[in-house]
Amino acid sequence: MPNNREVRLASRPTGWPTEQNFEFADSEVPEPGDGEVLVRNVFMSVDPYMRGRMNDVKSYTPPFALHETLQGGAVGRVEASNNASFSIGDYVSSNLGWREWFISDGRGIGKIDTTLAAPEAYLSVLGGTGFTAYVGLLDLGQPTPGETIFVSAAAGAVGSIVGQIGKIVGCRVVGSAGSDAKVSWLRDELGFDAAFNYKVEGIEDALARLCPDGIDVYFENVGGDHLQAALNHMNPFGRIAACGMISQYNNATPQPGPNNLSAIVRQRLTIRGFIVSDHADRRPDFVRDMSAWLSDGRVKDRVTIVEGIDNAPAAFLGLLRGENIGKMLVKL
Amino acid sequence: MPNNREVRLASRPTGWPTEQNFEFADSEVPEPGDGEVLVRNVFMSVDPYMRGRMNDVKSYTPPFALHETLQGGAVGRVEASNNASFSIGDYVSSNLGWREWFISDGRGIGKIDTTLAAPEAYLSVLGGTGFTAYVGLLDLGQPTPGETIFVSAAAGAVGSIVGQIGKIVGCRVVGSAGSDAKVSWLRDELGFDAAFNYKVEGIEDALARLCPDGIDVYFENVGGDHLQAALNHMNPFGRIAACGMISQYNNATPQPGPNNLSAIVRQRLTIRGFIVSDHADRRPDFVRDMSAWLSDGRVKDRVTIVEGIDNAPAAFLGLLRGENIGKMLVKL
Repeated sequence: MPNNREVRLASRPTGWPTEQNFEFADSEVPEPGDGEVLVRNVFMSVDPYMRGRMNDVKSYTPPFALHETLQGGAVGRVEASNNASFSIGDYVSSNLGWREWFISDGRGIGKIDTTLAAPEAYLSVLGGTGFTAYVGLLDLGQPTPGETIFVSAAAGAVGSIVGQIGKIVGCRVVGSAGSDAKVSWLRDELGFDAAFNYKVEGIEDALARLCPDGIDVYFENVGGDHLQAALNHMNPFGRIAACGMISQYNNATPQPGPNNLSAIVRQRLTIRGFIVSDHADRRPDFVRDMSAWLSDGRVKDRVTIVEGIDNAPAAFLGLLRGENIGKMLVKL
Repeated sequence: MPNNREVRLASRPTGWPTEQNFEFADSEVPEPGDGEVLVRNVFMSVDPYMRGRMNDVKSYTPPFALHETLQGGAVGRVEASNNASFSIGDYVSSNLGWREWFISDGRGIGKIDTTLAAPEAYLSVLGGTGFTAYVGLLDLGQPTPGETIFVSAAAGAVGSIVGQIGKIVGCRVVGSAGSDAKVSWLRDELGFDAAFNYKVEGIEDALARLCPDGIDVYFENVGGDHLQAALNHMNPFGRIAACGMISQYNNATPQPGPNNLSAIVRQRLTIRGFIVSDHADRRPDFVRDMSAWLSDGRVKDRVTIVEGIDNAPAAFLGLLRGENIGKMLVKL
């Protein structure tokens, strides 16, 4: 049998993680027993929330355990099956990433329809990433036509889909990103009304320039300076959908927050944090809408692919540094 | 005719205001014309939000104008009337405080029922103060029986009513206040389950001690350290009703905020700022419920009274320093 390589947590980082926080382990690929299937992962996802799981802090998902295989979204191909529900050649999604092969009794894996989209799309636009954008923008942000949406980390996996949904529902969409190439992609390819490179122009200045009518919905992926600047431009009754605050994840010690939180009261803002898994009731709506938007070309999916499980830690670290455009995936 | 003394804004403060920011003006009490009434104010309200109106900053209420009479809640007695809707001896509420007398054509004043409660109650528990507590706790906080409510500035006008409503709806109620006398009043007179003096015990330590099951609803009056500590103890899906952030109002330069806002995402919190005037549709419910709670003794009203319009600026400054227990009023 071929070798099965896995990635494990070697140590917990303080501040920015490094490759030394990861370790590899090899084993023989096991044989599936009665009722089991053998899956070969073909793509795995790296996501910002995984940084939180590297800390020994109670959260909505438990911390990664030291010296145990990491977890995360993956899609794979059934290579052997003793389970009547799965056939060789089926593609399945799971939370068993960071490994090349795994055995399952069928729980925790779900067949995906590769006639509708490529397998990797189920880790990006048709997966948790797209669903996060959908729920966060529509249910928490509650945009109405003509309103202005600002999305930070707009060229990231979630942000890029948020902006495209924002255009579909008739809003003006403004995004921030960390390179001129990302800014061009948002404006020229995805149809954002405006975008800016926050490493070149101050966020405050950019929002004054690009959101002359204020911000009605802020889709928050970054926190810190982005949140402070957005608060200064929020319109009365504005909504902030708080999906993540990636600028804070690698602080070795907690950093002070925005100095203008009293805008929450003055402008009667609503800030709501969310985790997409709490919104499973909306999945059928998401699948229906996103499939239609993909097939008629109104939503475009872009992935940045890193090759090989040996490079998975580097892919994750690159994600935290913003090296991806669109969804960051590892091809196994 | 008697003299009519008014208080005006002499200059805009930077940081903490002083008596020098106020000036007085005297005039003859005017005669009411056709359709007009003459009102003699008997009580006026001083409220934390007035600090914001002293700044030249756009907000939900316009800034106070320099060298013009200040505004604010007041109750007064009709002393002369050429308006068929008002009789001598009627009591009316208005937003025309900071003056001893005024003329009205009937717009912006409303008769109050002094058989139900004393006139000053319409500036506290039956006025905007009580309505703020009612809407903020019930509609924004959405407490359910058995949940834990934490209210900051709990011995203040709004906070003391929030806590009492919290007990009525079956919650555990914990409050912070700035003196041992206030803490005793909250626990021994108002029925709070627990209270602490934040000038003596660290907020973080106190919440760990007094909210062992976490906080489900935080009624935010203070901001700053209070918000940071509360965020560290919020339960998943907790709600923060942001009524005010008095700790921030007198900063000469904006101060950094909490270092733990990523708890909003991790715990899926909802933070909502509000201004009671946006919730006028709930006033009939408020009047019905609060009248009942007052008459059966389930809500107690307490006021701190300062005498005379000459002392109105001092009353306001004392309010900002937390010198009041319950509602701070000026008797005219």
